[in-house]
Amino acid sequence: MIRSHEAGTLRKEHAGQQVTLAGWVARRRDHGGVTFIDLRDASGTAQVVFREEDTAHDLRSEFCVKITGEVRVRPAGNENPELPTGGIEVAAADIEVLSEAAPLPFPIEGDVNVNEEVRLKYRYLDIRRDAVARAMRVRSEGSFLVHEVMREHGFVNVETPTLTRSTPEGARDFLVPVRLKPGHWYALPQSPQLFKQLLMVSGLERYYQIARCYRDEDSRADRQPEFTQIDIEMSFAEQEDVLRVAEDLVARLWKEIVGYEIPRPIPRMTYAEAMSRFGSDKPDLRFGNELTELTGYFSGTSFRVFQAPYVGAVVMPGGASQTRKELDGWQDWAKARGARGLAYVLVQEDGSLGGPVAKNLSEEEKAGLAAKVGAAPGDAIFFAAGKPHAMRELLGAARLEIGRRRGLIDESAWEFCWVVDAPVFEPAEDADGEQIGWTPVHHPFTAPKPEYADDFQDRPGEALADAYDIVCNGNEIGGGSIRIHRAEMQQRVFDALGLSKEEAESKFGFLLEAFKYGPPPHGGIAFGWDRLVMLLAGVDTIRDVIAFPKAASGHDPLTGAPTSISAEQRKEAGVDVLPEDGAEE
Amino acid sequence: MIRSHEAGTLRKEHAGQQVTLAGWVARRRDHGGVTFIDLRDASGTAQVVFREEDTAHDLRSEFCVKITGEVRVRPAGNENPELPTGGIEVAAADIEVLSEAAPLPFPIEGDVNVNEEVRLKYRYLDIRRDAVARAMRVRSEGSFLVHEVMREHGFVNVETPTLTRSTPEGARDFLVPVRLKPGHWYALPQSPQLFKQLLMVSGLERYYQIARCYRDEDSRADRQPEFTQIDIEMSFAEQEDVLRVAEDLVARLWKEIVGYEIPRPIPRMTYAEAMSRFGSDKPDLRFGNELTELTGYFSGTSFRVFQAPYVGAVVMPGGASQTRKELDGWQDWAKARGARGLAYVLVQEDGSLGGPVAKNLSEEEKAGLAAKVGAAPGDAIFFAAGKPHAMRELLGAARLEIGRRRGLIDESAWEFCWVVDAPVFEPAEDADGEQIGWTPVHHPFTAPKPEYADDFQDRPGEALADAYDIVCNGNEIGGGSIRIHRAEMQQRVFDALGLSKEEAESKFGFLLEAFKYGPPPHGGIAFGWDRLVMLLAGVDTIRDVIAFPKAASGHDPLTGAPTSISAEQRKEAGVDVLPEDGAEE
Repeated sequence: MIRSHEAGTLRKEHAGQQVTLAGWVARRRDHGGVTFIDLRDASGTAQVVFREEDTAHDLRSEFCVKITGEVRVRPAGNENPELPTGGIEVAAADIEVLSEAAPLPFPIEGDVNVNEEVRLKYRYLDIRRDAVARAMRVRSEGSFLVHEVMREHGFVNVETPTLTRSTPEGARDFLVPVRLKPGHWYALPQSPQLFKQLLMVSGLERYYQIARCYRDEDSRADRQPEFTQIDIEMSFAEQEDVLRVAEDLVARLWKEIVGYEIPRPIPRMTYAEAMSRFGSDKPDLRFGNELTELTGYFSGTSFRVFQAPYVGAVVMPGGASQTRKELDGWQDWAKARGARGLAYVLVQEDGSLGGPVAKNLSEEEKAGLAAKVGAAPGDAIFFAAGKPHAMRELLGAARLEIGRRRGLIDESAWEFCWVVDAPVFEPAEDADGEQIGWTPVHHPFTAPKPEYADDFQDRPGEALADAYDIVCNGNEIGGGSIRIHRAEMQQRVFDALGLSKEEAESKFGFLLEAFKYGPPPHGGIAFGWDRLVMLLAGVDTIRDVIAFPKAASGHDPLTGAPTSISAEQRKEAGVDVLPEDGAEE
Repeated sequence: MIRSHEAGTLRKEHAGQQVTLAGWVARRRDHGGVTFIDLRDASGTAQVVFREEDTAHDLRSEFCVKITGEVRVRPAGNENPELPTGGIEVAAADIEVLSEAAPLPFPIEGDVNVNEEVRLKYRYLDIRRDAVARAMRVRSEGSFLVHEVMREHGFVNVETPTLTRSTPEGARDFLVPVRLKPGHWYALPQSPQLFKQLLMVSGLERYYQIARCYRDEDSRADRQPEFTQIDIEMSFAEQEDVLRVAEDLVARLWKEIVGYEIPRPIPRMTYAEAMSRFGSDKPDLRFGNELTELTGYFSGTSFRVFQAPYVGAVVMPGGASQTRKELDGWQDWAKARGARGLAYVLVQEDGSLGGPVAKNLSEEEKAGLAAKVGAAPGDAIFFAAGKPHAMRELLGAARLEIGRRRGLIDESAWEFCWVVDAPVFEPAEDADGEQIGWTPVHHPFTAPKPEYADDFQDRPGEALADAYDIVCNGNEIGGGSIRIHRAEMQQRVFDALGLSKEEAESKFGFLLEAFKYGPPPHGGIAFGWDRLVMLLAGVDTIRDVIAFPKAASGHDPLTGAPTSISAEQRKEAGVDVLPEDGAEE
């Protein structure tokens, strides 16, 4: 190494030693002929003192320098107890500029509000900032812990292919033309799902991978075209076994990185309960303020709006004192989510009910309402009435918004839960919201629970799955299921989904073929690694835990990708070659 | 788990216990009403005995079954000391067929020579075979050791993007159309080279990654369109530092997986010495039989063929007794490598020289020849004369072929070396072999050694690089270099390569931009992980250490990838959208 010590490791014990440091000029202060430089490297910073003015004269921020000098104890009164190296300084004898830095697009030191596009364009400077570098290190340490836990549990780390089969139905697959077979294309996988199930057929029994996945989807906040998942699959396992491994993994990560001991076992809640109490399949349990179902309460109502298959409510503590503008704002908020609005009642200080809905309610309905929903004088009660699932989701979103606005969420808390027993199928709807069939809630290999195994096809709307999602502070961080391993049951699921033999063959033919050769019972789980690390690192977006993330629409401000390609590249890659007969191979 | 024990873990201590096992029917033997089944799971096999004929009646190979029974000590004389479970058997009380198996395309048990295309089509069955599963486990264990060693050395594991910038010159890049920006394409990276250098600018100082890389290149034996490399880069490091980390990594892998302690430090050889002595930049040191340079020896020869800038020879021990057909075979061998042939002399038992070349040599030349090249009576001497590099490579290849044919290679040996001081540039030649310029031996960021730093542009053919390759048993398993971090030197390299400012900008613009902001001195190395694991696992091709490899031309017999795509997919992915002005963004 061209240095003898790392700057951040120097202490009073080093006093008197000649050291050579190398790093970046972080801060510079001039005091009457004496120049102080904070020299930063990956280990931290150390103060370097130049007594001869001219040597430090040309040093500017972020120059990369090598400095030789003697470590000295700082004069009394000059110590900085905030800094691990605050007891010493290095009296520079020699300095070499390893490379210069142009004026910076944004400062590296200190908190500065920088436009994200600019941060991403100069990501290599952004990562020099302490918080960003720290997030990279958390991700690295986290991935090591994943390897360690999975190895302790006897899992085999297998790399599955990323140049794989495209299927005509595979919308959102990225496609890749193949120069050696013009007219033929690979697809980048949205997950290693099919390969991990093949690995179970292969008898490895315990597979995991930190896998890169791809999805060419509409740009949404906090989505990336490439993302990483921790992919796990086990044979001869029951749901309990998968959950135990997953909890061991999550517990280790939180303990080692955050210093938080997750209470075990992590509590479980059925999907039905999560929807009913929290209006969400990923409930944020850092606060209460649960939904109240009022369908029965309003079963005899004369108020037309509440004559619905589901009526529910959520309370906003202190919400009765909102201004008219704030209350109107809730209507816009609801409309932006596709609802018609958000009916409300204001509980006055005297216990009477105000707001436009109140006058539509009978005296009897009004009398018991506050007590029924747990509202106190000064609170607002928001209502939703209509299709149960959609209305619960609306109230669940309102609950979260109330939690944020009212400061109900304990930001220092960690609240985990499993959401289990999700439905196997959910209605597939056309653009008008009319049901046109069934679609899998997870994916078509998810096994129905044993009590639905024989007749789920006759009551697809009721069948529950051996599926589980793990939720942290309202974020779904992982999910999985026990898979179907019997061809006969798989066929009934395809039938229920309206998937023809030809479609099934085209999409999953090689997996169905593999299942002819003694497939074991198996199940697994996958964690969204970017989101999980985001929580561990305490940052706000997954872009903060990805070294070189894409901005909106998959654009990379740093490299300029994606770009147009030349006619020669098109020709070379065989982009324009069409298959001879248009038939799939 | 649906079982109580893993089959391979049962021992005499378990005798008397009721156990439930789950796995596959490996072998079946019937003996007068008693059926023996070898039940295989990931842990090994155990013998299961059925006394009632009918229960085991329908069991066929590779059925997946669950068996409950009592562990018993095998009757005296029936033990199998070869097997860890050979002292016990399980007396089956109950059996459940978890899934049936169709007749197998090839047997799982025993060594059977199966066509590779068939093995890959049924890869999930292939992996059930012991040797293949073992290779998967070696890879998994190896990658864990990589993470462990790199973490101990303070490296940060960073995932770099695989959807990145295409460059017009980037032949062999796989391209990916972007639905959200029709007419725009990503490229899959051939290595994370540019990103790892950006990470050095970012101040992380120590980066590594087990990285998936892509190359759309001509199908060659033992190449895959996607492959994995261990990618390492360090700041403020000198060549010694990179070599030490690399040796720690390799030493740990060989020690933990193979049980071999690599002598340290690994010996070093200059590129010039490797070419001169072994005719290769990746010399196989498991045997001697080095080349002899004869340019001086034949400096006054009247034999026109040997009036060349380089004449060299390699001895084939016992080669004088080859038949005419065998000797002609060498000519075909040489022609297949692009040479005109391979001149030879046979040293007869009486010491006289035979073969067609001998008659062209003077008595004096003949007299000292055998001694000069170290040939004994009965040996053959092969010659090459012409351009030094090409002729050394020809003799080097002949040396390897001789080693194989004559059994000179100690197959149990591990011989490592570093090949250092490679040239910075090599001649770029046109189709006729005429030099038209210079091309980088490694890549254009490789730093010339300090003694060439100031004037390499004036003598590009002489300049040596701070570059290093690590070689194991004649396989290059890794290579790297100290990089250029000064813009001024980088420009001189581009100039020497004839790379215009526009080309450099288009290819590496964002890296050159980054280098304006205080880049640190840095260097690194990358290991070809597939090849390295191939050596660790003791298998013959990299396909044996890849779970789902491609066959020739990038075809995957299992999934059928790549496939043609539909008109709708083309439209959806924006494949046919051309950029408005043809200009690159």
